[in-house]
Amino acid sequence: MKNFSFYSPTIIKFGEGSIGKLQKLVEGKYERVLLHYGGGSIKKNGVYQQTIEQLENAGVEVFELGGVKPNPALSMVREGIELAKEKKIDLVLAVGGGSVIDSAKAIALGALSDSDIWDFFLGKESVEKVLPVGVVLTIPATGSEASMGSVVTNEDKNQKMSVNDDLLRPAFAIMDPEYTMTLPREQTFAGVMDILSHIFERYFTHTEYVELTDRLAEATIKTVVNNAYKLLENPDDYNARAEIMLSGTIAHNGLLGMGREDDWASHQLGHQLSALYGATHGVTLGVIFPAWMKYVYRENLDIFNQFAVNVFGVSAFGNTQEHVALEGIRHFEEFLKEIGLPRTLTEAGLPTNEFERMADLAVSMGSFGALKTISREDAINIYKLAE
Amino acid sequence: MKNFSFYSPTIIKFGEGSIGKLQKLVEGKYERVLLHYGGGSIKKNGVYQQTIEQLENAGVEVFELGGVKPNPALSMVREGIELAKEKKIDLVLAVGGGSVIDSAKAIALGALSDSDIWDFFLGKESVEKVLPVGVVLTIPATGSEASMGSVVTNEDKNQKMSVNDDLLRPAFAIMDPEYTMTLPREQTFAGVMDILSHIFERYFTHTEYVELTDRLAEATIKTVVNNAYKLLENPDDYNARAEIMLSGTIAHNGLLGMGREDDWASHQLGHQLSALYGATHGVTLGVIFPAWMKYVYRENLDIFNQFAVNVFGVSAFGNTQEHVALEGIRHFEEFLKEIGLPRTLTEAGLPTNEFERMADLAVSMGSFGALKTISREDAINIYKLAE
Repeated sequence: MKNFSFYSPTIIKFGEGSIGKLQKLVEGKYERVLLHYGGGSIKKNGVYQQTIEQLENAGVEVFELGGVKPNPALSMVREGIELAKEKKIDLVLAVGGGSVIDSAKAIALGALSDSDIWDFFLGKESVEKVLPVGVVLTIPATGSEASMGSVVTNEDKNQKMSVNDDLLRPAFAIMDPEYTMTLPREQTFAGVMDILSHIFERYFTHTEYVELTDRLAEATIKTVVNNAYKLLENPDDYNARAEIMLSGTIAHNGLLGMGREDDWASHQLGHQLSALYGATHGVTLGVIFPAWMKYVYRENLDIFNQFAVNVFGVSAFGNTQEHVALEGIRHFEEFLKEIGLPRTLTEAGLPTNEFERMADLAVSMGSFGALKTISREDAINIYKLAE
Repeated sequence: MKNFSFYSPTIIKFGEGSIGKLQKLVEGKYERVLLHYGGGSIKKNGVYQQTIEQLENAGVEVFELGGVKPNPALSMVREGIELAKEKKIDLVLAVGGGSVIDSAKAIALGALSDSDIWDFFLGKESVEKVLPVGVVLTIPATGSEASMGSVVTNEDKNQKMSVNDDLLRPAFAIMDPEYTMTLPREQTFAGVMDILSHIFERYFTHTEYVELTDRLAEATIKTVVNNAYKLLENPDDYNARAEIMLSGTIAHNGLLGMGREDDWASHQLGHQLSALYGATHGVTLGVIFPAWMKYVYRENLDIFNQFAVNVFGVSAFGNTQEHVALEGIRHFEEFLKEIGLPRTLTEAGLPTNEFERMADLAVSMGSFGALKTISREDAINIYKLAE
């Protein structure tokens, strides 16, 4: 096990009706709230009205910035920063999914800085102070409600990049599984893939003697897979929604990465598909992960065998390690098929004649990954495998 | 799944040499530190000297209160509160195991209150403000390094009671598995039982649809059991020590209780053995849990079956639920035997002719427990089963 730090201070209020806790979380602590949200679905399903009511009861002044799009745009972040500075905002409240939360985090960071916000994403500036961010979660997927990261897309440069710091962890997150009942099917399952990807990025590494986090990761993967199947049968299953929502937080709050290296190559490869073609984040991960797995599994046959046996119940008896590893990957692809996610660039309607362009963008900050360091050539090979 | 709140803000610095992080955690934040510790073993193994060096580098003024005993005494808590008030302490730093940490928490609570500290344990006062508590952990067992609880013994009244509030969660915990290498064998395995008990108290309940926490709990139990066996073979196994130390935190920081009721009947029954006879906390749990399990398993055969199958690999095929449940309990008792813990009052050298006295004390605040509500008569029956 490696040495590590762990700090996850987000207050989680979980369950049906937990929006009722918002007033107390805000009252007396904050005065001027920036309410940040997406395309307006929260106005249709009542979440907006419930949030406003709580904020009014809390007696805070509310400023609004809606219209965040998937793969949140730097331009809107800049707009939010300007607004936050002008209105002397002291809490950025994200109501929505990962894109809204990540946009809110970037605004909260930029609001207290004189530097250009993109410099934080380029690693030229380090995070020193951030406005508090609150979350009312409506899409379980990115885990941003308790994570240390924010991912934003610079539209002018086709760059999708992240900034990571414990200070970016939200102060609180209100998580009501009821809010996820009306999600379109594709968004539900793209979210499921996103959640799994956060576990995979931590699980498939070289670190030895990480038994607790191996077991916790497998526990979370199994719960996500099992409850995704339940949602296929019955999208209105509150408890299955709850299991997946909670798994999304656990998958990415750092718990499952304790004491181990993490990888993030598949995220890096997937981000380029969002930056170039606007592809849904979870969809890009479903396309990249099987290809990445097939490209790298020989780097650590043991962990891919453990995955196959402990998660999907593949029998190790009488089979080669190679065979068992591939069986695990096959089971995972089968799962993707069942939940209706594309497993290839072709199935996702993404180009299959721009591998070099994708790879160039992926390695623009250098090679990446941990289980295997991914060079430009490796990136091309993985995109090809995903064809 | 039940609605729940979760808040676990403790900064964890984990791994060999992590004491080196103490200076930065303290510097510029605190000025007057109460260093609280136990019987002096930290002076023999160098932990005391390393801690003092870090505090000196941090430029804080240090006041000392050593001599905390297992089942920490209210009298010493009172002494600490007086000292903390007099010296205007702004951080209570516990260096030791659960007893020292729990004593430190009670001091931190009392230092900011004019009420009598025992009133908080009796539920007459509610927690509103607490001095920050820091931890340098030397014994993995109680999970107090990140938990919301403090358990203290009122020697005059033979009462061992707890106070629980999120404000009692430590600000930081330094956890170096190397510090646990020199623990006596009995203390190591009493700690293992204490860790398991915190999982059991949350796992064996009636709440349905708690798949994620069921799986996470089983993951942690398996890790603890497996690594306890490794320590039997080789007490110097750093990675096994690390797995158990980390499991101890996860077992009791609230993660495994998310969305489910918890029980605590076995703790309540065990506490009386400590209050009356000074028995080691972990030892009392090893004595009580098998008896409690046998007394209550019919209340929820499903969860005891799940335990048997998922943790100990008992085969459910061709067996009655009754048989499978009892097989799980038998496996657990077998484990206790292997690690050398007493499984009965007799083996623990505790009285077997004072069941009524034990039970009277246990129900002094009323009946208790969740899987089954334990009355005075139930308590007597369970103590008898533990004979």
